Amino acid sequence: MKKGMFYAVGVGPGDPEDMTLKAKRILESADVVVIPVKQPGESSSAYAIAEQAADMSQAEKMEVVFPMKRGADYRSYLRSGALDSVYKALDDGKKVAMVTLGDVSVYSTATYVRQMVALKGYETTVVAGIPSFCAGAAKTQYSLCENEESLLVLPGVGSQKSIEQALEQFDNLVIMKAGRALEWLLPVLQQRGLLEHTVMLCNVGMPDEYIGKPLAKYRSYFTTLLIKKGGLR
Amino acid sequence: MKKGMFYAVGVGPGDPEDMTLKAKRILESADVVVIPVKQPGESSSAYAIAEQAADMSQAEKMEVVFPMKRGADYRSYLRSGALDSVYKALDDGKKVAMVTLGDVSVYSTATYVRQMVALKGYETTVVAGIPSFCAGAAKTQYSLCENEESLLVLPGVGSQKSIEQALEQFDNLVIMKAGRALEWLLPVLQQRGLLEHTVMLCNVGMPDEYIGKPLAKYRSYFTTLLIKKGGLR
Repeated sequence: MKKGMFYAVGVGPGDPEDMTLKAKRILESADVVVIPVKQPGESSSAYAIAEQAADMSQAEKMEVVFPMKRGADYRSYLRSGALDSVYKALDDGKKVAMVTLGDVSVYSTATYVRQMVALKGYETTVVAGIPSFCAGAAKTQYSLCENEESLLVLPGVGSQKSIEQALEQFDNLVIMKAGRALEWLLPVLQQRGLLEHTVMLCNVGMPDEYIGKPLAKYRSYFTTLLIKKGGLR
Repeated sequence: MKKGMFYAVGVGPGDPEDMTLKAKRILESADVVVIPVKQPGESSSAYAIAEQAADMSQAEKMEVVFPMKRGADYRSYLRSGALDSVYKALDDGKKVAMVTLGDVSVYSTATYVRQMVALKGYETTVVAGIPSFCAGAAKTQYSLCENEESLLVLPGVGSQKSIEQALEQFDNLVIMKAGRALEWLLPVLQQRGLLEHTVMLCNVGMPDEYIGKPLAKYRSYFTTLLIKKGGLR
């Protein structure tokens, strides 16, 4: 029997209309939709977005639990049986599509799953999604980079030193997963006169979306800072 | 009379299915579709993508000429009358949508147009699109950044020194508009043992797409290099 195909599908960061035509088509024709959750039975932001734009009633829903711990070794976790039901569905020749927030290639757990599935010898396909920083730039109508400018995307979980150095060096910075870094990062931005050059994007496209001046209270995992040293424009 | 709304719409880098649901909806309901061209009467890549996925038969088509010269001062060019027909349509209360390749916020001329239109006092909206580097990463199934890695997006039209410095410093690099830089850049990558860590993306999603080993002959404006110092994975 021909084995099935695994699709890693980016659904964008929140607004269901940010989903691509391809994401909608793949999800609506999948036999199995894989839903990443932090704990069994918990809701999934990615699935909540997808189901507003795609009719997935034909598909079996399959939860895969991702503990989402900082510094977690997802590869070894995924090797220890978490994907067995995915492999079973692929062995049965099924079309298996996993939903993931934003874009698959930008800090997504779907990347690890796809790699594991591919290492097991199954065919895989990646469906790009709108990354949160592009959706945020669109909402605020700021550009991420123009002309000869550079754009640096950094995770807020990186070192303070690397972020401070980047602030020295680059025109435009996107700091993703910035929630936990705010405590030290906001004073640093203030000190450098960059607070007015920074917009905070929190849960973009979701009901509790916040877009505006950086505020220390928005500690969500999905907090992104866009810093434009040349000024917000 | 209520003035119209200007939409800057990213259509992704080539595959019409990379268009978002929102881009399709806006283009299919626009009164006027603005088409950026290099010369009057020339074809537009962005429009060619859009018309494969969106039925724009209802809309008036309006060309805006962009000379696309290196270092061109688009702002002063656009101030000199190039957008008069756009303003006229907006004054008439029309819904005017401009198509642009990739994402609006990443090195796009639509950004300048939107800024000019907004400065004239019209309302504007940005519709995000899949940037070429996300589409390329999806096609090649490489991730752009994982865990605590950074991603630097640079234009190939920047200085050799800044690109060489970035190669020292960052995990993952995307060099856009790399065509003209290949002559000096490929030897630099070879010397640093990075050629095997680099994938070249040329006209992604278009009929003459090339994705693979970097080759000096692909000098297109739409040539992107993805360099992963940790190895392609």
